Amino acid sequence: MSTSTAHKQDPKTDHKLIDGRGVAMGIRDGVAKRIARLREANWQPRLVSLAVGAAEPAKLYIRNQRKVADKLGIEFDDRYYDESITREELLATIQALNADPSVTGIILQRPLPDHLPMKELQSAVHPLKDVEGMHPSSIGNIVYDDLVLGPCTAVAAVEMLKSTGLNLPGLEVVVVGHSVIVGKPIAFLLMSEGATVTVCHHMTRNLTVHSRRADAVFVAVGKPQLITGDMIKPGSALIDIGINQIEDEQGNTKVVGDADHDSCYDVAGWLTPVPGGVGPVTVSVLMQNVAKAAELQKRHYEREFGEADFVVSS
Amino acid sequence: MSTSTAHKQDPKTDHKLIDGRGVAMGIRDGVAKRIARLREANWQPRLVSLAVGAAEPAKLYIRNQRKVADKLGIEFDDRYYDESITREELLATIQALNADPSVTGIILQRPLPDHLPMKELQSAVHPLKDVEGMHPSSIGNIVYDDLVLGPCTAVAAVEMLKSTGLNLPGLEVVVVGHSVIVGKPIAFLLMSEGATVTVCHHMTRNLTVHSRRADAVFVAVGKPQLITGDMIKPGSALIDIGINQIEDEQGNTKVVGDADHDSCYDVAGWLTPVPGGVGPVTVSVLMQNVAKAAELQKRHYEREFGEADFVVSS
Repeated sequence: MSTSTAHKQDPKTDHKLIDGRGVAMGIRDGVAKRIARLREANWQPRLVSLAVGAAEPAKLYIRNQRKVADKLGIEFDDRYYDESITREELLATIQALNADPSVTGIILQRPLPDHLPMKELQSAVHPLKDVEGMHPSSIGNIVYDDLVLGPCTAVAAVEMLKSTGLNLPGLEVVVVGHSVIVGKPIAFLLMSEGATVTVCHHMTRNLTVHSRRADAVFVAVGKPQLITGDMIKPGSALIDIGINQIEDEQGNTKVVGDADHDSCYDVAGWLTPVPGGVGPVTVSVLMQNVAKAAELQKRHYEREFGEADFVVSS
Repeated sequence: MSTSTAHKQDPKTDHKLIDGRGVAMGIRDGVAKRIARLREANWQPRLVSLAVGAAEPAKLYIRNQRKVADKLGIEFDDRYYDESITREELLATIQALNADPSVTGIILQRPLPDHLPMKELQSAVHPLKDVEGMHPSSIGNIVYDDLVLGPCTAVAAVEMLKSTGLNLPGLEVVVVGHSVIVGKPIAFLLMSEGATVTVCHHMTRNLTVHSRRADAVFVAVGKPQLITGDMIKPGSALIDIGINQIEDEQGNTKVVGDADHDSCYDVAGWLTPVPGGVGPVTVSVLMQNVAKAAELQKRHYEREFGEADFVVSS
C-alpha cells in the first residue's frame, strides 16, 4: 500500500484505473463513421458554442471541444459575448440558430452571468438541436427510458461504469449529489439499465451507511476528499465526477476529484482517475450527441419533404 | 392485534390510517377558489377526456372525474372513440384541441389499444394543456425542481406522505416500482423535497433490506401482498398506490393495494387504506392541474396580447 505512487499509475497498464481516454476513443470511432455518413448525404454537422463573459477555464474547455470537433469533421463555431448581453438578445440569438438549417447543434456554455436565466435559455434551444441534453423534454425522455439526447456528463459517467463489465441489472448503486445536470440524470440512466439506485446529498443523514453497501458509487458534488476509502465497499467501483482545483503542500495548483484517490485506490475494485477519467469521455459524448442530433434533423426533414405527393399553395 | 377488524377501521377516527378523502377535500377547497377566480376573468376551465375503446372500469373512472369536475365548476367533455381510430386521426384530434381556445386541459385516458403509441400521443398534447403531467417536458421540469404540471398519481402519493407531518429533508424513503408514470416521478418529487430516495423494482436483489431501513415506503407495482409487515420498519409510513382486484375466500371481488394491509397495520406508524387512500387524492390533483393549466394559459395569453404597443400587418 503506497499512497504516493498510486497517483502515478497509468490507466493503460493499471487495471484498477478506468481509462477515460480509452473509453473516449472507443466512442469517437463510432462518431467519426456517423459524421462521415452524414456529410456524404449533405448533412454537414455544425456546432455553435455560445459563451457569455467566458473566463480562461471556460475558454480552455471550449478550445478542447473545438479540437475534438475538428478531428471528427464537425464544424465548430465558437461565439463569445460580453457580460452585458441581455436575456432578450440571447434568446433572439438562440431562436435564429434554431431556424438556421446550417446549424445542427447549439451549446450554451456554463456558467452564465447571474442576470441570464439558464433554464429558460436552455429550454429555448430546439430539442432536436439540444446536443447538451439539457432541455426539459430531453431530460423527460430519459425518465421514459428513451435516451435521445442525454446530458453529456451523466452519460459519460455511466459509460465509465459500463466499461468495467459489471452487470447493471440489480446492481446496488449510490449516487452522491442530486444536481439536475449530473446526479439526477445518472440516477435515471442507471434505473433504465435495471440498477437499484439511491440518490444521496447534503441532507442525507448518514452517507457512509449508503456508500458502504454500494457495488458502485458515483460522486458529483464538488468537494475534494468527500469520499474516503473507509466509506466504500471493498471491490466496488468508484466513478468520480468532481473537478476541483486545490493547492498541494508545495503551493502548486492541481486538479482533484471528490474522492480521496489514494485511500480509495486501496479499497475499490475500479476507480476513475481525475483528470483523465470522466472528463475526456464527456467531450466524446457531446460529439456523439452532435451526430445523433444531425441524424434526427435529417430524418425529420426527410419525413417532411421526402414524400412527393403534396401541393404547394402560395 | 386483530386482523379481522383492521379493515373496518375508519380513517376519520383511526390516526394510523391516512385519510385520503380528507386530503382530497383539502386540495379541492383550494382548487374551487382558483376556478372561481378564473371564471370571473372569463377563463372558464374546460377539460376534454379522450377515451379509446373504453371498458367499464375506465368508464367508471371517467364518470368519477366528471362528478368532481362538475362540483368544482370545470366543464367536462368526455369523448369516446371506437378501437378502430388510427394514430393519425387521434393526433389530428389532439392538435385541434390544442388549437381550440375553449379547451384548457386534455386527458388521454389509459389504457389505449396496442396500435396507438401512448408516448407519442401524450407528447402531442400541448405542454400547457397537459393536465396529466405526462409530457416529457412536464416530467423534465420535475427533475429541474420546477413542479409545473406533475403526474397526478405521483403528486397525490407525495401529498399523502406530507399529511403525516413527517419532515421530508433527510427522510429515508424507498420507492418500490420504477414506472414512468408513478414510481420515478415520486422519486424525483421526493428528491426535490430533500429526501434520500432509493428506487427498487423487480431486478432489486433484496427488497426487504431496503424496505426495512426506510422511514417511508411507497409501493406502486400492482402485486397484492407484495409488502408484508415483516418487511417494514416499526413506526414507518406506508403509502400504497396499488389497485388490484382479487377474490376473497367467499368468492367476492374486492379491491386491495400492493401491501398486506393487516400485517402492515400492526407495524407501520401510518398507512394508506385501499380504497380510499391515494385514489381520491389523485382526482383532486388532476383538478388542481386543470386550474394551474388554465392559469398558465391565461398568463401566456396576457403576455402575448396584453401589451398594446404593436402593429398588425395583414
